[in-house]
Order: sequence, then C-alpha cells, then structure tokens
Amino acid sequence: MTRTQLLSDKHLLGTKGLSAEELTSILDRAAYWEQYPVKVTGHLQGRFVANMFFENSTRTRFSFEVAEKRLGAEVLNFTAAVSSVQKGESIYDTVRTLESMGIDAGVIRMKPNGLLPELVQKIKVPLINAGDGNNEHPTQALLDLYTIRQTFGGFKGLHVAIIGDIQHSRVARSNLWALQTLGARVSFCAPQGMRADELGEHAPYVTIDEALSADVVMMLRVQLERHEGTLFGSAEEYRAAYGLTSERAARMAPHAIIMHPAPFNRNVEIDDELVECEKSKIFTQMSNGVPIRMAVIERALS
Amino acid sequence: MTRTQLLSDKHLLGTKGLSAEELTSILDRAAYWEQYPVKVTGHLQGRFVANMFFENSTRTRFSFEVAEKRLGAEVLNFTAAVSSVQKGESIYDTVRTLESMGIDAGVIRMKPNGLLPELVQKIKVPLINAGDGNNEHPTQALLDLYTIRQTFGGFKGLHVAIIGDIQHSRVARSNLWALQTLGARVSFCAPQGMRADELGEHAPYVTIDEALSADVVMMLRVQLERHEGTLFGSAEEYRAAYGLTSERAARMAPHAIIMHPAPFNRNVEIDDELVECEKSKIFTQMSNGVPIRMAVIERALS
Amino acid sequence: MTRTQLLSDKHLLGTKGLSAEELTSILDRAAYWEQYPVKVTGHLQGRFVANMFFENSTRTRFSFEVAEKRLGAEVLNFTAAVSSVQKGESIYDTVRTLESMGIDAGVIRMKPNGLLPELVQKIKVPLINAGDGNNEHPTQALLDLYTIRQTFGGFKGLHVAIIGDIQHSRVARSNLWALQTLGARVSFCAPQGMRADELGEHAPYVTIDEALSADVVMMLRVQLERHEGTLFGSAEEYRAAYGLTSERAARMAPHAIIMHPAPFNRNVEIDDELVECEKSKIFTQMSNGVPIRMAVIERALS
Repeated sequence: MTRTQLLSDKHLLGTKGLSAEELTSILDRAAYWEQYPVKVTGHLQGRFVANMFFENSTRTRFSFEVAEKRLGAEVLNFTAAVSSVQKGESIYDTVRTLESMGIDAGVIRMKPNGLLPELVQKIKVPLINAGDGNNEHPTQALLDLYTIRQTFGGFKGLHVAIIGDIQHSRVARSNLWALQTLGARVSFCAPQGMRADELGEHAPYVTIDEALSADVVMMLRVQLERHEGTLFGSAEEYRAAYGLTSERAARMAPHAIIMHPAPFNRNVEIDDELVECEKSKIFTQMSNGVPIRMAVIERALS
Repeated sequence: MTRTQLLSDKHLLGTKGLSAEELTSILDRAAYWEQYPVKVTGHLQGRFVANMFFENSTRTRFSFEVAEKRLGAEVLNFTAAVSSVQKGESIYDTVRTLESMGIDAGVIRMKPNGLLPELVQKIKVPLINAGDGNNEHPTQALLDLYTIRQTFGGFKGLHVAIIGDIQHSRVARSNLWALQTLGARVSFCAPQGMRADELGEHAPYVTIDEALSADVVMMLRVQLERHEGTLFGSAEEYRAAYGLTSERAARMAPHAIIMHPAPFNRNVEIDDELVECEKSKIFTQMSNGVPIRMAVIERALS
Repeated sequence: MTRTQLLSDKHLLGTKGLSAEELTSILDRAAYWEQYPVKVTGHLQGRFVANMFFENSTRTRFSFEVAEKRLGAEVLNFTAAVSSVQKGESIYDTVRTLESMGIDAGVIRMKPNGLLPELVQKIKVPLINAGDGNNEHPTQALLDLYTIRQTFGGFKGLHVAIIGDIQHSRVARSNLWALQTLGARVSFCAPQGMRADELGEHAPYVTIDEALSADVVMMLRVQLERHEGTLFGSAEEYRAAYGLTSERAARMAPHAIIMHPAPFNRNVEIDDELVECEKSKIFTQMSNGVPIRMAVIERALS
C-alpha cells in the first residue's frame, strides 16, 4: 500500500469507493460513541480541528463542533463570510494557512465540485468533506445509514427512494453510493429539470407513487429559487407533484420511515405536520449526526 | 405541582411572575459566584450550552459566554447572520436542531414577541431568555437588581425612575416586574410616542424633573431611527427634553445612582462625561452580568 | 519606574521603542514554545483572552486563537461584522465592556491609526496590537524576525528589502523599527504613489534590482483597488514593475529568502510558482506566528 493510499484512509472525501467494511466500522464506532457514558472525553485532548465552511451551514457545523468538543479537541471555526476570503484569498491558501498553524484535521465545506481530491494532494492533515458542491456529503449519508440501520437492523433488500432535486444534491449522491455498497436498493424520483443524467445508470427514476412504496422515503430540500420560471418554480406546484403531503404519507407502508437531511421547507417538499410525525426520523437523524461525526473525526486522527 | 411547572422552574422566560424568594435566591447565588476564588470551575463540565442569537448583540452574548465558560461548560455560539436562518429556517427548527444534537440548555434572543412560551412547550431543554422583542430581558433586570442591592442593601422604599423609549423596551418591562416584586417603587418618564399604554396601570409616567429625584435614574437606549419625522427624531431635541445631561445629573440626590443597560448613545440619552462619572454604575452593571448569568445558567442545569 | 511604565511592559502596541533585549527575549521564549513537548498546556488556565477584531482577518485571528488555546486560556472572539458595533458603539466602549466582564488580556485590530495609546490609558488589562491602520503590526514583525533568525542565525549585517505599498503598510513599519533595533539594514522599494514620505529618513528607497540583492526580499500585499486610475492600478503593470516574478527571483542570491506577510495576490506582487518555492518562507512565517503569539500573550499575562 502506498503512502498516498494510507493517507487517504484518514481523509473522508466521499462514500464512493468506501467498502462495506469501512462503512460498517464507522457505523459501529458511532454506536459506541452514542452509548458513551460521559459526554466529553479526553480522547482528542490537545488536538486542534478546524471547521472550514466556505458555504453557510447551521446544522452541519454545529454537529461537527459538538462531536469535536465531545472528543475533547480544540475547535477553530472558520466561515467565509467573516474572513478575508472576501479579499479573494483562495480556499487552498486558507486551508494551507490553518495547516501551517498546526491543526491536526480539517472539516471542509465548499461550493466548488471536484476541488477536494486536488486539495488532499497538497495538504498533509486529514480532511473531512462536509459537503462539496453537488458531489458528496459523506457524513450526512453515514448518519442516514446509521438511522436506517437503527430502524431496520440492516440494509439488505431495503428500498430507499430519494425524492426531489437529485441534480443538485450531494446528499442523494453520497447516499446512493453508500446504500448500494451495503446492499440496499435505491431509486430516485424527480421532475425532468431536477434529474441527474449521469446517475441514471446507477438508480432508476420512478414515479412518486412507486417511491411511496419504499421502506425509506427520503425527501430532499428543494431550492425553488433555482427553478424560477419553470413548472416547479412555485411551492404549490412542487408540493402538488412531488411533495410529501399528509395524504401521500398515509399511503406509505406501516413500517416505512420518512427522512430528510434538513433544512426542510415546511409545506413545500414536506407537509408541516409530517416533520415530527411518528414515521419521521428527521430529528433522530440530527441526533445521530453527532456520534457519526465523532467516529469520523476519531478515524481521521487515529 | 405538575411536570410543566417543575420544568418551568428551569426556564427563565421573564421576571414577571417570579417570586421575591426566587429573585433573591438568584441574587444570592450571583454573590457567591462573584466571590468565587477561581475564575473557571468544573461545575458544568461536560455540559453544552448554546447561545442562540437571532438578533445581534455584543454585550449580552459575551456576558453569557464568559459565565458559561467560568462554569466549565462547553459553549456553542449561534448567530443568525452567519447561518442558514438566512435560508428561511424558522427559530423553532434551529432550537430543535441544537436540542437534537444534545445541548443541555439554550440561551436565546429573538425579535418576535411572545414566541417563547410556545417554544418552551415544544422543547425539552431549559431556555433562558436573553431578550425577546419588547417583552422581557430577565437577566438584564437581574443584574440591575444586583447592582441596586449592592449599592443600597435592598429595595424596600427605593424609587427607580426609568427614562426613555419605554414602549420598545424589554429592559423596562423586566425591571418593572422584578423591582415591584421586591418592594421598590417604579416610575416611567417618556415622551408621548415612547410610552407603553398597557404599562400605565402598573407605574405612573412622571416628568423628567420628578424622575431626577429618584434613587436610581435608569436611562434607556433610544433608537432615533425608530422615531424619524417625530419631534424626538433628532438627537438634539431628544437630549434637550429627556437626556441625562450633566446639568440634570447635578440635580440628582447625592446618594442617587445612574444606570443604563447599554449600549448607550453618548450625548443623546446620556452625556458623554456621565458614562463613567462617580454616580454611574454602567460598567459595574456589565461586571455584575457575569455572576448573575452564572447563577441563572446553574439554576437551569441543576 | 512609574506604574504606567510598568503597565506598558504588559501591552504590546508596536515594535517602535522596544529594546533589542525585549525583542530577543520574546524570540527566545517563542523558541521555547515551538519546542514545547505538548500542544496544549495549562499555563493560562482560568484566564480569559478576548480577540477583538474591528477589521476582518483570517490569518492573524486564528494564529492568536491557536496560541491562546495552546496556553490553556479561554478565548472570546469578537468581530465587528457580527456585533452591535454596527449600531455605532465605539471601539472604546466594546473594549471597556469586555474588560468589565473580566477578560485578562485583549488582542485588538482596528482601522484607525493612533487610537491605541489613548485606549491603553483608559483600559487596565494588557492590550496586544494585532494591527492598527498603517501604524504597526508588531506580532507580524516578531514572527518575521523569528523566521529570519531561524534562517540566518541573527540580524547583524543582514539586508532586508521591503517591496510594495509601503505607505499603507503597518507590516513595513513594524519590521523597520524592529529590524533596525536588532542591527539589520532595511531598504524600501515602491513606486512613487506607494511611498511613505515620513519613513524616508529611516530607510532608503532603492530600485527593484537593488532590492533583489538583499538577503531577505519581503514582498507586501498590494491592494490594487486603492490605486485605481494610477499607473499601478492594473495587476499586469504592477507585476511588471514591482512584482517578484520567477525571472526576478532567479536573480536573488542563493542564500537569500522570500517573505510575505500574506494574504498574497498570486501573479500580482508574487508569481504563483514562487509562493511555495524553496526560497519562500511564507508558510513557515505562518507556523512561526503561533509560538510568537504564545510568547507575547504570556508576556502580557505574566
């Protein structure tokens, strides 16, 4: 095994290419952390983790911050909006700067697609992808897997339908790769303008009715402003055609669950009263994000 | 006692309805913390407190942060300006998200009035109001009480005059309820457009000259931009009619004190040279904010 | 020695007036911290340091934050962009507020020139200048000195050429005073509109070719938007006349080094491929910032 390969075991750029063993070992370690008797441990005492968010986020950044602090690490929070990235400094220079200052690992979110593999070649500290463009969001997929395993005990034979703006969704992609590796069946459901052509060979596009027959109905956030002027530029029309309405939820199987990576648009892609209904795992997903990220950060620094 | 009542002992939504015993026990505990021999204790080690500011603040947020860190808690700082609240996410969803991630208590500031009681019904962790609309700002009132008690030894028979934009002031309201509960006499002084009609039955409106005869002259911040086009839309006119000028301060009783919740507009509601004059307790108030908030957070988490 | 003098030993407002002994003792202590066997110590446990940035910064703020956390201090981060400074609160009021809350030291960056000596008269806690206007940026100069000493073993007889917008540069000024105190020879190189007349008596302006013969070629960031409409308002023209191009770098002495305080404009004042070339100490400078700031903060609080 080359040094690059060894190093790449520390990074987490995506779920694509991760083996079932790797995925499972992260899920198992998260289960360990979920049950851990004390909230803050000394596991990563004296280690520095930088959260570098070149794109805004509430949920993901705080989830990582809680995970890092529970592991006892020192946390640095970088957000592009309040920094000299405004002065045109590149993402690379920022990461390299923080590396020079002695951080032990970096969590990174950014708008550009496909910059990460290049970045990883030039940076020595492990990097964890917290979302890059519409490419990958591996820790979201891992916490989704964790939630699914918690509910169903495993993945073999499960049908997961992902509904919404597949084209722009890094969550859809990361879930696709990971779920298929673990033996689940994935299908997509989206209007024409929200489909990702290149994913068509990996998972079929199904109708909303077919999607509702899945064991897991995973709704995606729709950013209507991206689709202005099209048929699905209005909240009402989108909801009518692809939203998880109460009426549609009632047609799901008794054992089936609703998931959403959040933030959600109430009464657009999901009806207000479904967000915290019995079938919904939305806030459970958020809870699971913390032990998953503890496992991922620990893996990066071990 | 119902579970809801028990829980509500943990929250701090306002001073309205707090008993004299409850108020005094917080003041006493703050005195304990003020004298505490070391700056950072392990009292709340392993507990997470989230500061959720949906409205900007320097003073209050830092005061809470210092208090939390002195208690040994882990701190998460959320401010709306750098988060996905911009994407339309509701206050509830943010609080619920942080709750899902395992915070033990939340400090919250927000623009809307009257949302908090509803929020508290849906959230399991204790919430501390750091200012909501023009409704309440209980920790500000508590630190004001602390400062008054420090100076006068008690509240019985004291006259506290609150001068300024009463209508928009949560500080005035929280002080009114708490001071009256503890036996002080409160009066208001404000031009017509800055009066709160609904408070008229609780405290009289007096002239500026009568207000100057109080034991405590508490000035409020005036936001002139709110009163543009009215008589008091100009700094000069406001200062002339309701400002605490040096000339007016000279007419205060020798034992009387000046207070202000800050931030202050120098030479609008208070003359520049009065901010740190001998009578002024303004920066003492800020110092007292830390032990008060330590007492309040400890109460929430005990 | 007066109390003011004693106190001023705790502040670090600039390098001007610091003795060779003082400078050397900071460099020596930084060397101690650079070699320190563990990353986070308990040296400043229970002490609070506030980073007060009234001007944006990535590098400097994080460098201070890492230094503070490595010393075991509690850190408060204030940035003007997300605070009530927007409401017109003055710098003094913010610093005084944080002082009232019990911070033990403050790190401060601000746009105005010459406000610091006044501020220090009114504030009791030690203040460390993290850059004020075009006046001083002493910790940058100290980390530059550290990097130079690391490379050359000392300063006597060394020629340091500082190239770029001298007029607006606090880095140039802080380096000038410190380098001369330690026995180095400083020269400046800048087009007419970027020269600082008042510095002419302290260091000569030389041509770019003379500057390239120095032992240390220190490039400054040029903010072209400041020079719009002039000869050097275009990146191409500036690069052609004053940029460190690969061709120019090839003419430097074999032992000479390239420095830059960052952030840098690739292909304006420095060619892209030079940023991390063998001669370049740019990221080494950033690494050295951490132990230097540890030494400076420790000095403030000892």
